[in-house]
Amino acid sequence: MNRFLITLCLLFTATPSLADVAIVIHGGAGTITREKLTPELENEYRSILASVSEYGYQRLKEGVPSEQVVVEVIKQMEDSPLFNAGHGAVLTHDETVELDASIMRGSDLNAGAIAGVTRVKNPIALALAVMEQSVHVMLVGIGAETFAEQIGTEFVDNSYFVTPRRLEQVQRAKQRTAQMAIPKPEKYGTVGAVALDSQGNLSAGTSTGGMTNKRFGRVGDAPIIGAGTYADNQSCGVSATGHGEYFIRAAVAHDICARALYQGLSLQEAADAVIQDKLVEMGGDGGIIALTPAGEVVYSFNTPGMYRAGIDANGVKTLGIYAID
Amino acid sequence: MNRFLITLCLLFTATPSLADVAIVIHGGAGTITREKLTPELENEYRSILASVSEYGYQRLKEGVPSEQVVVEVIKQMEDSPLFNAGHGAVLTHDETVELDASIMRGSDLNAGAIAGVTRVKNPIALALAVMEQSVHVMLVGIGAETFAEQIGTEFVDNSYFVTPRRLEQVQRAKQRTAQMAIPKPEKYGTVGAVALDSQGNLSAGTSTGGMTNKRFGRVGDAPIIGAGTYADNQSCGVSATGHGEYFIRAAVAHDICARALYQGLSLQEAADAVIQDKLVEMGGDGGIIALTPAGEVVYSFNTPGMYRAGIDANGVKTLGIYAID
Repeated sequence: MNRFLITLCLLFTATPSLADVAIVIHGGAGTITREKLTPELENEYRSILASVSEYGYQRLKEGVPSEQVVVEVIKQMEDSPLFNAGHGAVLTHDETVELDASIMRGSDLNAGAIAGVTRVKNPIALALAVMEQSVHVMLVGIGAETFAEQIGTEFVDNSYFVTPRRLEQVQRAKQRTAQMAIPKPEKYGTVGAVALDSQGNLSAGTSTGGMTNKRFGRVGDAPIIGAGTYADNQSCGVSATGHGEYFIRAAVAHDICARALYQGLSLQEAADAVIQDKLVEMGGDGGIIALTPAGEVVYSFNTPGMYRAGIDANGVKTLGIYAID
Repeated sequence: MNRFLITLCLLFTATPSLADVAIVIHGGAGTITREKLTPELENEYRSILASVSEYGYQRLKEGVPSEQVVVEVIKQMEDSPLFNAGHGAVLTHDETVELDASIMRGSDLNAGAIAGVTRVKNPIALALAVMEQSVHVMLVGIGAETFAEQIGTEFVDNSYFVTPRRLEQVQRAKQRTAQMAIPKPEKYGTVGAVALDSQGNLSAGTSTGGMTNKRFGRVGDAPIIGAGTYADNQSCGVSATGHGEYFIRAAVAHDICARALYQGLSLQEAADAVIQDKLVEMGGDGGIIALTPAGEVVYSFNTPGMYRAGIDANGVKTLGIYAID
């Protein structure tokens, strides 16, 4: 009986092994406050964050590789008008949609990224195709779409991405910029996911429409490996959302992994050092989600809110919108 | 007399202060061997490497800021047909030229980058303009050229960049790819510079035509902040040249600065750890030039050669082409 109890205790207190899976997702950071969200909209966000993270967790439990799960969950967010990615992405100055995405696999540091595509339904799936079916890491603009055509990617008309809410948003932004200099964006609705699969492999991905009213082929951090996305089985997987220019300059995703690996910080400490200290000093708003190689979930954001949900390697679920949720 | 001698000795053995300037440049790495270069061509390379580095050093001595000197010396290499940047850049599959460049300033981590431009005479100057005259860090394709038009950048016809040597090179490459899978490029002729100015500020810049026979709007590491270029007064300035896909995946430029800063390695040790160990394991060819905040010159490359020259904070000149030069 004594031996039986000891076995039972060991079973339940075992630290997560590599066979335990984990997932974390985000739907953007920014000045997201209770005053700005109606209860109905808040419920919609909580509901999709829960369902997407649980779907991803189940797929990982089934043994699906992390890069595939990252694509599947990000596609769901790209297809939802609630987020600034795919359908419902923010509009450019010309009232069109230009999409960026990237993915990275921590087992072999392979990566794929695309920027400035206008007719690819799911940019994250094209980023995966660049990683798996091309010798390149990054393809941009019309060239990226030529590649997409050749591999049979699903195309849509640019109008598929445009929603009335985003049209109104860009028109307001244009009126504001006509009056004053450069308004700071209020919300960065980029989506992202980091997953740890049953083989112990981390993958991270990010997808976005960029900034409302953007011009000149502007590219933010989302498709930049090392800025918006990084994954290395040795250190961590990260997906970022925020004022992309600052995230590129601080090499946010790689810097977090580097601090964890080289300085011996916990991933939470490494993330906070970059997001709460370095970026705040620089004036860069935003946040990140991350996973350790053992499947610990980490959030860090310096904005009033970040849409987020995760299930760690112990099966513990977290979900939140506001800083104090 | 004794006191005079001591003063004289102190004068000549003084360690470099922040007022001492330094510069290092590269013109690409690859399978550059004595057998492949005629003595005349080798002399041409040595001559331009010497004159460009000495010009940059003089400008820094005059008190010109490091980002300005980086642009001036890279422009000279862009204008030379000897290097794969600007005039004389490699050709795409469509036999046109698509240029990428980036610059970063270590004092405030500000940065500018452009990718896929086809009519801008000096891409590095446009990268500086993105850094100084826009709120963005990275602009790509036609959008980047719209911005360039608005700020009065010098435009040329795409044919200005095309040289007979590069036309022949891409045509040979297309014949080879028709026969076998993906040939590994032999030479990465990207150009770059890192400078330390009299204010103690580091800047780094990189400019390239990318890979011969490239397609699909492929972007390599040169315009990616953190991959091909990074500068931080706290750690180092780096410019890279090599098989760009690997340099993006390994976040080469940022990783070198991070290892020096967080692991307490010398910059040479940090650079070798990335170039000689990590990249070699991954299968990535290429090299880097770098400067410490004190103006020490660092080279590291895992290819048979790299066109390079530098003048450190003690005024010591180095110049080389082959691994054993």
